[in-house]
Amino acid sequence: MNHDAAIRLFAKTLQNVEQWMDKAAAHAKAKSFDVDVLAQMRLAPDQFPFARQVQSACDQAKYAAAYLGGKEPPSHPDTEQTVAELRQRIHKCLGFLETVGPKDLTGAEDRKVSPPWLGGKWLRGDDYLVHVALPNFFFHATMAYAILRHNGVDLGKMDYIGSLPARDA
Amino acid sequence: MNHDAAIRLFAKTLQNVEQWMDKAAAHAKAKSFDVDVLAQMRLAPDQFPFARQVQSACDQAKYAAAYLGGKEPPSHPDTEQTVAELRQRIHKCLGFLETVGPKDLTGAEDRKVSPPWLGGKWLRGDDYLVHVALPNFFFHATMAYAILRHNGVDLGKMDYIGSLPARDA
Repeated sequence: MNHDAAIRLFAKTLQNVEQWMDKAAAHAKAKSFDVDVLAQMRLAPDQFPFARQVQSACDQAKYAAAYLGGKEPPSHPDTEQTVAELRQRIHKCLGFLETVGPKDLTGAEDRKVSPPWLGGKWLRGDDYLVHVALPNFFFHATMAYAILRHNGVDLGKMDYIGSLPARDA
Repeated sequence: MNHDAAIRLFAKTLQNVEQWMDKAAAHAKAKSFDVDVLAQMRLAPDQFPFARQVQSACDQAKYAAAYLGGKEPPSHPDTEQTVAELRQRIHKCLGFLETVGPKDLTGAEDRKVSPPWLGGKWLRGDDYLVHVALPNFFFHATMAYAILRHNGVDLGKMDYIGSLPARDA
């Protein structure tokens, strides 16, 4: 699996997240509540709400693309309050991911990745992808899914996985 | 990121899952309830309970190692009812993952992976890892975490991520 495949996986999954919002909107309409109520729902009082889970998934994808691709991460402030704004946040993130291509990611495994929260320490690019970006990205995407699921939105596993590049025998 | 790193990531995360069970046991003891009650908790009535999330995470890791490493997947029936039995399931899975090494995984990207649920179609090894194994594994691990978290177990993000191979500047 190369680093470009990982960035494309993040992009595909964020597109899936936006489709969960379509199902959330349908559920809100059927039950006559404001879909934006879901943006502040949480599974535990000391846990991030749905909006912050989506923002965090976007950030994990953005920072992985920037750090592994040798680009400056663009600033995307966490100001979104509504589902419509969260869709825009996903679009902004996808736009940035498209600017990071296979050529930028060549040699990513050997880059020194030193995010501020590591306090001066660093990780090899490969280790950053495996130990930080992949688990964290799917953590926040799955939590976003879990919050909607817990609140009655009609989601199933295939909404999470999306399409598969299966081939005919 | 090579395929061996992905299998080791699954193993590390399953070890983290077992540590969440230590915190679940501490929580159950503090609140004077039977920890095995948690094994049947769910976030939605039509969703898998904790036990099945752990079994599914183990299976995603097991099948990825078997399919990508060219080995026969061992049979691990979903019979676990208690937290102690779920720990054993994780140990069985980790034991199998240890039998699949870097040599077995050489060329894994080009293997034809044709699990029964694909109905005769197949995926390239690389595509199986990216589109099936990674998202599904972290889906079930995160759901297991979310169920415990929702039920008051004192878990935080570092329990999910575990240790990082950070290096000194």
